[in-house]
Amino acid sequence: MDLSLLYDAKGCHVPLAEQIAERINQLIIDQKLTENDKLPTEFELMEILDVGRSTVREALKILVARNVLEIRRGKGTFVCKHPGMNKDPLGFAYMQDKMRLAHELMEVRTQIEPWTASLAAQRATKADMEELCGYCEKVTDMDLPERQHREADLAFHVCIAHCTHNQVICNLTPIITHSVQVFSDISERIIRLKTRISHQQICDAICAGDSQAARAAVLSHLEANRENWEKIARESAEKVSTS
Amino acid sequence: MDLSLLYDAKGCHVPLAEQIAERINQLIIDQKLTENDKLPTEFELMEILDVGRSTVREALKILVARNVLEIRRGKGTFVCKHPGMNKDPLGFAYMQDKMRLAHELMEVRTQIEPWTASLAAQRATKADMEELCGYCEKVTDMDLPERQHREADLAFHVCIAHCTHNQVICNLTPIITHSVQVFSDISERIIRLKTRISHQQICDAICAGDSQAARAAVLSHLEANRENWEKIARESAEKVSTS
Repeated sequence: MDLSLLYDAKGCHVPLAEQIAERINQLIIDQKLTENDKLPTEFELMEILDVGRSTVREALKILVARNVLEIRRGKGTFVCKHPGMNKDPLGFAYMQDKMRLAHELMEVRTQIEPWTASLAAQRATKADMEELCGYCEKVTDMDLPERQHREADLAFHVCIAHCTHNQVICNLTPIITHSVQVFSDISERIIRLKTRISHQQICDAICAGDSQAARAAVLSHLEANRENWEKIARESAEKVSTS
Repeated sequence: MDLSLLYDAKGCHVPLAEQIAERINQLIIDQKLTENDKLPTEFELMEILDVGRSTVREALKILVARNVLEIRRGKGTFVCKHPGMNKDPLGFAYMQDKMRLAHELMEVRTQIEPWTASLAAQRATKADMEELCGYCEKVTDMDLPERQHREADLAFHVCIAHCTHNQVICNLTPIITHSVQVFSDISERIIRLKTRISHQQICDAICAGDSQAARAAVLSHLEANRENWEKIARESAEKVSTS
């Protein structure tokens, strides 16, 4: 029995359900269960882990809350697509000064995203390029409804990350790109017009394998975003201060 | 009532406890509750949210599992230090090819950390520098036991991030630095000797406000780490393949 399961970093006793959740988690890692793999049933887990049904249930609930598992009614318990990752892993929602957050995020994106695009230009396969062009077509389509446009935009940026074939970049990108949704309740018509060209430039540069051009295109894309983004953050800050 | 609470992205009905967890979460954000702030009692929450005790309890458990809240026995329920952040938000533990992960993480760190150090050199206050020197002294002390050394090492790198006064960098750094612990079960004596000098150089450069030197010192620090790190990953990969 791993003693580190019994006591936390502060030396406090860890509740049983928590310990069992940790053991089920380790089971998932050891058995290399991934997306769509089915977990043993509650009864099997009771036997494997030698605990009662209520403890197993409690432990499964903890892992569902942590996005490691999902319960599909009538089908069983399955491993999530990105186990352990939540929608806002850097806790942006809890940062109170949204104006400051907007600036700080932009600083980080200006550093990471041009570099990501330059790697993408060096490493994208034929299949990657086709996928990227598909998303680019969608994202530059001005007739697409707001919500679908936002999804296509995120998919386009995640696709660039995939072109790098670096999993860490893949997991990091949606976090800092998706974050834009922290300030996303205004009309995005203007920004869509502005970023239409830069989206196309990014796609072209990556497909041409031109890493310098890819870097420059992303920088100018972020620059086009910046003005609008700061406006959103300012309005969001005002809304908070008057509410 | 916010309809987005009732249905998830796939249009499935969200369980009541999950909806209530989301509303308590929003309460924390709206009321700007932060570290060590006490949450209303279960009875108060029952009244505010107009639900039964078991639902409130279920919802609180979900938020505890998500590291938003912590329960202190006999004292009540409190907001966590970094609400919503877990130990492994990029899901490194679930990536199976550790050797590949080591390479990919090093690629990302080589991009982000020298830049972070250069910003730190430009922005560190007098107080920041004193704190950094304190951690540097600790981390270069060869007599410190392994575990405390690892803590001091992490604290040193997190402190550099704090010197940038960018919260996004602050929250991002422990994730990519801490990740080293994915491969951390071998003796670190050799690497401690190797990185001793580079830790001191990083500290000196930041305190001198020399951003070029800070960038270079971090790059050579990562280079000193790389060889050892790849060795660890290789051993870890072999261990997995033979187990």
